[in-house]
Amino acid sequence: MTVYTPPLARLIEQLQKLPGVGPKTAQRLALHILQRSDDEVKALAEALIEAKQKVGLCQTCFNLSAEPICPICRNPNRDGSTICVVADSRDAIALEKTREYLGKYHILGGTISPMDGVGPDSLYIPQLVRRASQPEVTEVILAISPSVEGETTTLYVGQLLKPFVKVTQIAFGLPMGGDLEYADEVTLARALEGRRELV
Amino acid sequence: MTVYTPPLARLIEQLQKLPGVGPKTAQRLALHILQRSDDEVKALAEALIEAKQKVGLCQTCFNLSAEPICPICRNPNRDGSTICVVADSRDAIALEKTREYLGKYHILGGTISPMDGVGPDSLYIPQLVRRASQPEVTEVILAISPSVEGETTTLYVGQLLKPFVKVTQIAFGLPMGGDLEYADEVTLARALEGRRELV
Repeated sequence: MTVYTPPLARLIEQLQKLPGVGPKTAQRLALHILQRSDDEVKALAEALIEAKQKVGLCQTCFNLSAEPICPICRNPNRDGSTICVVADSRDAIALEKTREYLGKYHILGGTISPMDGVGPDSLYIPQLVRRASQPEVTEVILAISPSVEGETTTLYVGQLLKPFVKVTQIAFGLPMGGDLEYADEVTLARALEGRRELV
Repeated sequence: MTVYTPPLARLIEQLQKLPGVGPKTAQRLALHILQRSDDEVKALAEALIEAKQKVGLCQTCFNLSAEPICPICRNPNRDGSTICVVADSRDAIALEKTREYLGKYHILGGTISPMDGVGPDSLYIPQLVRRASQPEVTEVILAISPSVEGETTTLYVGQLLKPFVKVTQIAFGLPMGGDLEYADEVTLARALEGRRELV
């Protein structure tokens, strides 16, 4: 006994492959999609195909880009002396949304994780070393999430780059608006360790 | 300053039109989709187009169907003497999943809601009256959610059909596994009102 008509069943099956989409959400999305106009559904389907076909990686910083060199790398107003190193493109997106950072990026494509078979060679680390050794680069900022793998990656990349360029790491501590009482011990310890003199 | 490369921005924009998908979820889905293989993305896009093109309404019961008459209406093993009336196809799907109901369905396409401009004529009520007046039909079960609009619809349809066919309504009361202490007053009142003698 099939509850769904076959084309609907296939759509629900496909939608369920998306992250965080279970059977109930997939059904809700599918029934919603059937109520949309032909043009709207076509627009969604085309956006899927187009994004998959056109979006690749920037040859310089390995961020997602529809062109060989991404707009940030091409932008002469962005400070080429600073490279901010992140694990993946969503981290670069998050930093871009702050509108505070005006340098360039380098996306590693993940973090070092021997358990998952990800060694330094599976990441864009050699390309980073090459970029960071160019004379115009004066600072490399490591902005990698402080997980076990993240810290390993920060340490590894830091050791590699320190001999020839200034390497800094973003600050970890109590989040803005965070409540000291409810912060976890590791965060509090990092906040204490990273204390600075009031000026 | 655009944070996303244009094809990615368009995909995120399209995904955000789905129900329950905000900017953060849309970004997460889009970045996930970019990591899938070309074939997988194509399969999703094609499932969207195919479902939208092929799925229409059954000419008898107005359930979603890829054929003019749906498999349930065509199935000679389903009891044609009983019609279960529901507001929309997701209600029929929910009932089918119980595997308890072996009669046929009639989907109204919504509930009567004068505030939203939905009168009895905007629903498949005339078609229900025609079906219910056929001699083989002996019972019409009203299974419409007990909202204000749902109750209005149940009352209206009940009054229309009662002169020529037996009309019943599904039971409302404490849900199975529900805790009496935490049930809302309206549910408890309906549970009391619907009490039956123990046999």
